[in-house]
Amino acid sequence: MSGSIYGKNYTITTWGESHGAGVGVVIDGAPAGIRLSEEDVQAFLDRRKPGTSAYVTQRKEGDICHIMSGVFDGLTTGTPIMILINNENQRSADYSEIASYYRPGHADYTFDAKYGFRDYRGGGRSSGRETIGRVAAGAVAAKFLEELGISVCAYTRSIAGIGIDYDRFDIAQREKNPFALPDAGVVDEIAALADKAISEKDSLGGIIECVIKGVPAGIGEPVFDKLDALLAHAVMSIGAVKGFEIGDGFEAAGHRGSDNNDAFCMDNGKISKKTNHSGGVLGGMSDGSDIIFRAAVKPTPSIASIQDTVNKSGEDIQVSIKGRHDPLVVPRAVVVVEAMASCTIADLILSNMGAKLENVKAVYNSEKK
Amino acid sequence: MSGSIYGKNYTITTWGESHGAGVGVVIDGAPAGIRLSEEDVQAFLDRRKPGTSAYVTQRKEGDICHIMSGVFDGLTTGTPIMILINNENQRSADYSEIASYYRPGHADYTFDAKYGFRDYRGGGRSSGRETIGRVAAGAVAAKFLEELGISVCAYTRSIAGIGIDYDRFDIAQREKNPFALPDAGVVDEIAALADKAISEKDSLGGIIECVIKGVPAGIGEPVFDKLDALLAHAVMSIGAVKGFEIGDGFEAAGHRGSDNNDAFCMDNGKISKKTNHSGGVLGGMSDGSDIIFRAAVKPTPSIASIQDTVNKSGEDIQVSIKGRHDPLVVPRAVVVVEAMASCTIADLILSNMGAKLENVKAVYNSEKK
Amino acid sequence: MSGSIYGKNYTITTWGESHGAGVGVVIDGAPAGIRLSEEDVQAFLDRRKPGTSAYVTQRKEGDICHIMSGVFDGLTTGTPIMILINNENQRSADYSEIASYYRPGHADYTFDAKYGFRDYRGGGRSSGRETIGRVAAGAVAAKFLEELGISVCAYTRSIAGIGIDYDRFDIAQREKNPFALPDAGVVDEIAALADKAISEKDSLGGIIECVIKGVPAGIGEPVFDKLDALLAHAVMSIGAVKGFEIGDGFEAAGHRGSDNNDAFCMDNGKISKKTNHSGGVLGGMSDGSDIIFRAAVKPTPSIASIQDTVNKSGEDIQVSIKGRHDPLVVPRAVVVVEAMASCTIADLILSNMGAKLENVKAVYNSEKK
Amino acid sequence: MSGSIYGKNYTITTWGESHGAGVGVVIDGAPAGIRLSEEDVQAFLDRRKPGTSAYVTQRKEGDICHIMSGVFDGLTTGTPIMILINNENQRSADYSEIASYYRPGHADYTFDAKYGFRDYRGGGRSSGRETIGRVAAGAVAAKFLEELGISVCAYTRSIAGIGIDYDRFDIAQREKNPFALPDAGVVDEIAALADKAISEKDSLGGIIECVIKGVPAGIGEPVFDKLDALLAHAVMSIGAVKGFEIGDGFEAAGHRGSDNNDAFCMDNGKISKKTNHSGGVLGGMSDGSDIIFRAAVKPTPSIASIQDTVNKSGEDIQVSIKGRHDPLVVPRAVVVVEAMASCTIADLILSNMGAKLENVKAVYNSEKK
Repeated sequence: MSGSIYGKNYTITTWGESHGAGVGVVIDGAPAGIRLSEEDVQAFLDRRKPGTSAYVTQRKEGDICHIMSGVFDGLTTGTPIMILINNENQRSADYSEIASYYRPGHADYTFDAKYGFRDYRGGGRSSGRETIGRVAAGAVAAKFLEELGISVCAYTRSIAGIGIDYDRFDIAQREKNPFALPDAGVVDEIAALADKAISEKDSLGGIIECVIKGVPAGIGEPVFDKLDALLAHAVMSIGAVKGFEIGDGFEAAGHRGSDNNDAFCMDNGKISKKTNHSGGVLGGMSDGSDIIFRAAVKPTPSIASIQDTVNKSGEDIQVSIKGRHDPLVVPRAVVVVEAMASCTIADLILSNMGAKLENVKAVYNSEKK
Repeated sequence: MSGSIYGKNYTITTWGESHGAGVGVVIDGAPAGIRLSEEDVQAFLDRRKPGTSAYVTQRKEGDICHIMSGVFDGLTTGTPIMILINNENQRSADYSEIASYYRPGHADYTFDAKYGFRDYRGGGRSSGRETIGRVAAGAVAAKFLEELGISVCAYTRSIAGIGIDYDRFDIAQREKNPFALPDAGVVDEIAALADKAISEKDSLGGIIECVIKGVPAGIGEPVFDKLDALLAHAVMSIGAVKGFEIGDGFEAAGHRGSDNNDAFCMDNGKISKKTNHSGGVLGGMSDGSDIIFRAAVKPTPSIASIQDTVNKSGEDIQVSIKGRHDPLVVPRAVVVVEAMASCTIADLILSNMGAKLENVKAVYNSEKK
Repeated sequence: MSGSIYGKNYTITTWGESHGAGVGVVIDGAPAGIRLSEEDVQAFLDRRKPGTSAYVTQRKEGDICHIMSGVFDGLTTGTPIMILINNENQRSADYSEIASYYRPGHADYTFDAKYGFRDYRGGGRSSGRETIGRVAAGAVAAKFLEELGISVCAYTRSIAGIGIDYDRFDIAQREKNPFALPDAGVVDEIAALADKAISEKDSLGGIIECVIKGVPAGIGEPVFDKLDALLAHAVMSIGAVKGFEIGDGFEAAGHRGSDNNDAFCMDNGKISKKTNHSGGVLGGMSDGSDIIFRAAVKPTPSIASIQDTVNKSGEDIQVSIKGRHDPLVVPRAVVVVEAMASCTIADLILSNMGAKLENVKAVYNSEKK
Repeated sequence: MSGSIYGKNYTITTWGESHGAGVGVVIDGAPAGIRLSEEDVQAFLDRRKPGTSAYVTQRKEGDICHIMSGVFDGLTTGTPIMILINNENQRSADYSEIASYYRPGHADYTFDAKYGFRDYRGGGRSSGRETIGRVAAGAVAAKFLEELGISVCAYTRSIAGIGIDYDRFDIAQREKNPFALPDAGVVDEIAALADKAISEKDSLGGIIECVIKGVPAGIGEPVFDKLDALLAHAVMSIGAVKGFEIGDGFEAAGHRGSDNNDAFCMDNGKISKKTNHSGGVLGGMSDGSDIIFRAAVKPTPSIASIQDTVNKSGEDIQVSIKGRHDPLVVPRAVVVVEAMASCTIADLILSNMGAKLENVKAVYNSEKK
């Protein structure tokens, strides 16, 4: 019945459709005292903004955020933070046609099946614009995590099977090419593939990788709310994501225990690991190593070439999707993955506050003073 | 703080440690009127029981279930169903040694980091025995889904990289070999690999696949609680699972939109799809096709060969894990995957009951009579 | 950590402070297909609007609502409904003084204790303006309940100990006097009391009663989420409410079982009750009779007479509260009580959809067609 | 659908029916490191045990608790604590008759309406035995709160309208009379009333009061999850409770603001209040004063005198309830009220851990070491 709420103690609720009045999010549970401005949020939103290259939708939207509540004198107050982004530049006429049929690879049919009808304009609630609220919430989470020395960083790992070379890894490159690639050396090859796909009225998929640094050991819950289970939930809830893996992921299934186990070792008086096949999670809790996961993103279903489908009258028809779409959704999804990971870590950090009686006592005794 | 509860309307809470008094689950939210007996539950538990072959732990446990509440005259009453399995055959002495150090690939270190100490006997809460409660809850969910014509079926797809041949697929084989393989033709090869790993004091991983049939279109929530996101959450919350994918999954990332989109078509007057790259989910809601997903299971971390690690005094040491462990956890994990998938579908079926006003009206008007 | 979310399947999240950019609510879980317009919501908001009589705050606010999402072609779509009300007519200067001290009977001190500081302008998050979001959510719930033949109706039962005469009960009077009284005969007496309190720079409290008609038997959950327990939660969460009772309530404590039990009887072939001491709830579930409850509202703490208090520097001081306040909060709280009751019933109606297997089967079989 | 779970971060799930195999609770979220034994829990259970006086049911039950999980070496481990109490001394034959009709004041009819049928033996899930799980959970919460210097204490305030004299208040008396009265002077009068009611085959109600000491200011959430709203939810969820009030409660409705406001004052360098009309809560958060609330308990509906009712065939009949019942449920409900209050405070203490960034930083920096 209600599925637009995520998180237990850092709780986000997104709202809004592609062609309604606006989109946004309410964040309930951000601690009081985090320094936060609209510029902080805008910087994240700008990373997913459309119209920035030939490889993403040409829809021009400002996507200007307004913090409507929960911040006073530049600090979060502990009360709900509502962030509003008004919609603009809507060309609903583009979509009037799709009201009558079901686009392959889209949620048109499933929305009708579930609710009996749908807001068909621009994908309605299943539009990529829904992720604006996620990114805004992720920006706030990132500010919170920054205060704790935690960083969350996602980037494109591969597009259409062409992957980065880790020897050339340079995160600074991510903002310098239209694919969010941290490897300048692979940009041209991917651009050529993308150009070809566009010219052939087709689209491409890819893989996004995310690295989280600075999380101490013990974050995450040992049974259902494992750190990796919640990351999987969060990341698989992004529209086009079809797979999730942590650490060695699917490759681990082909390894032996003696290869896959990470040996513990002492490092300058602290417990460390010699390798990180686990991706930073053991038994659902962070093990102090970097947390590393990957998400598989399917090719954009909106393609201009001719496809078979059915209409609402139950007739087999052929269609060619018009409108302004992303031939490549991966670059704009990178910041969404980062956002969902940030919200998840923020949530688990808060949930972990009461794990030990000694921590509860320490906070409580300081409150009593 | 509390992470042993899963599901919103079909809610399961597992409890219990490997060497405590018992393990079990409380199911809150199963509809009234489902025919249920202890035999129904026992049949599922027997599928994960240890000691059934040379390839799994030799610990002998009856794992006899007791339905303590929520069933009257052979029917669920709508109130919480508590299922209890007493522990027996505990040899805690086997584990006294591991109290002092951190086993590689295990949650020993992360438990200590989170809680300050741990019940070290047999892995405590992170023992595979925790999954008994999940399997019991899955058995009840399966009975519920059966009433709706939905079946959930998992099996081993590959072990150590050796996969089944779908041309020989025969689910009846699953119970006839120690690996839960639905392909008799690949059993010998895998047995040879497993024997070799055991003789070398090592362990193997694998991939489990699950197919869900009979789910109508429109089940699942369109934003955070997408059907595939919840399946990912549920399945990644199983101890050794490191990856999850739905439909074409990671392969989809390398495809083009024109390949990956499933064309809709009419089939005997009903909307159908020509292919099923989506794995039965579009926009987070079931699309009426079979739901197909896979889980990557890492090799068992408990191996008898010598490994480097550290002890609680912060010293580098070498260890060899004793005790009765599974060289191959995949076969016993198959029913756990099935259980978590069943609970997830049951939960979403219930959550979907109020999606349309017309359904609420129909139920409500029948209640009024 | 996050406490601005209420409801499980009809979930509302309010946001906003008195002097921020606006206030509002996100409703997640309203079924698709409810006819809804901004006028529907506005009608409820107008009932709590300030400035309508001498007995409530003179702050003039339009409180115009904007439905930002979740409605298409005049129908709810099943996706989150965000309703925004921009703030206007803010005179923050009125409040600059109270930043430095703690008003008696207000949440100034407790906010500072909890969060370390507060948005002191106009009460910030604990302002009565927070209830705007509740009323908007209640308006939507009321539209939903109307479709099911359920009505929720609250009114003032007493002010300052002067109660209505049920022999003169006429709900149409509620909109015709400034006290929301359903009894014209008592208006003058209460007006005189209120005038006196105002002239003496003081304030009054009262009791609100609410009657819910048309709920079939069996709504509500039998243990923690009893219908009356959730109504108590919902109603006690309204700022000034200090007590809740259902049916005979506190009086029942002085009665005997033989007086308090309601005898069942047959009425035109249906099960009915001869009396309604229970207030329509037995064992936490509706019993088919009218649901009747009362809420005790304390006198407004903002009074202009001189009071002792302390300032943030820890000094004993004397203050006289300025600003535009309600000498009598009861009349404007009536619609808030109604709103919270409506949201609660809507939530429980949805949660009840899966109580019986036969209902799940019926909905499910109709979906399969 | 699922309503047997209470609390967000200290989460309790009760299970069990009167005449099933047993009753109990799972507690998920208790911090690790609380010293806990079965004796601690048993002491609380013994306070609600039947058969201790002529004024409560003569059913003899040991109600012996077994901690099945979550405790190791005498300390809570942070994992779920399951506490099991096996049922014994069941005389189901006593109840075979009530299967066919609906007892006035009981949940028989509403259970049938909701679920289609019911476990009628001894009230099934709506039996007072369900509260055993609550009391066990409250015992654990009390141990936790004790570590923080918080005490929760409930007692009978009045029975059948005869109240205690606060001048003679002596909590030590509570265990010395069969009515849980903290005033020896009123025992005889109440005993006479109770004897009379019993002789007349009738039952009595009463009021329970609860005082919570040692809660620092700032506990509770300012909007829906107000401390008093959650206490109301928790306490109203106890079977026979029909009303809840905090501080001056319903009396406050008749007071003026100048009387009802509690003036703040400095007391030995700390902020204090001159009075406590608020009952220790302002704006939903604790204000540092004692938290005081009351619950109205209706007379036991099971009475031996003849009553009108209907049977399942829809016929008007007359019945006289047999079986072993409490003519007076108040004394045994006192510890249940205490338990629900303890669980609520524990939950809010944990939820408050992340309210301030500075507290999150402090815990987190200590974890990093």
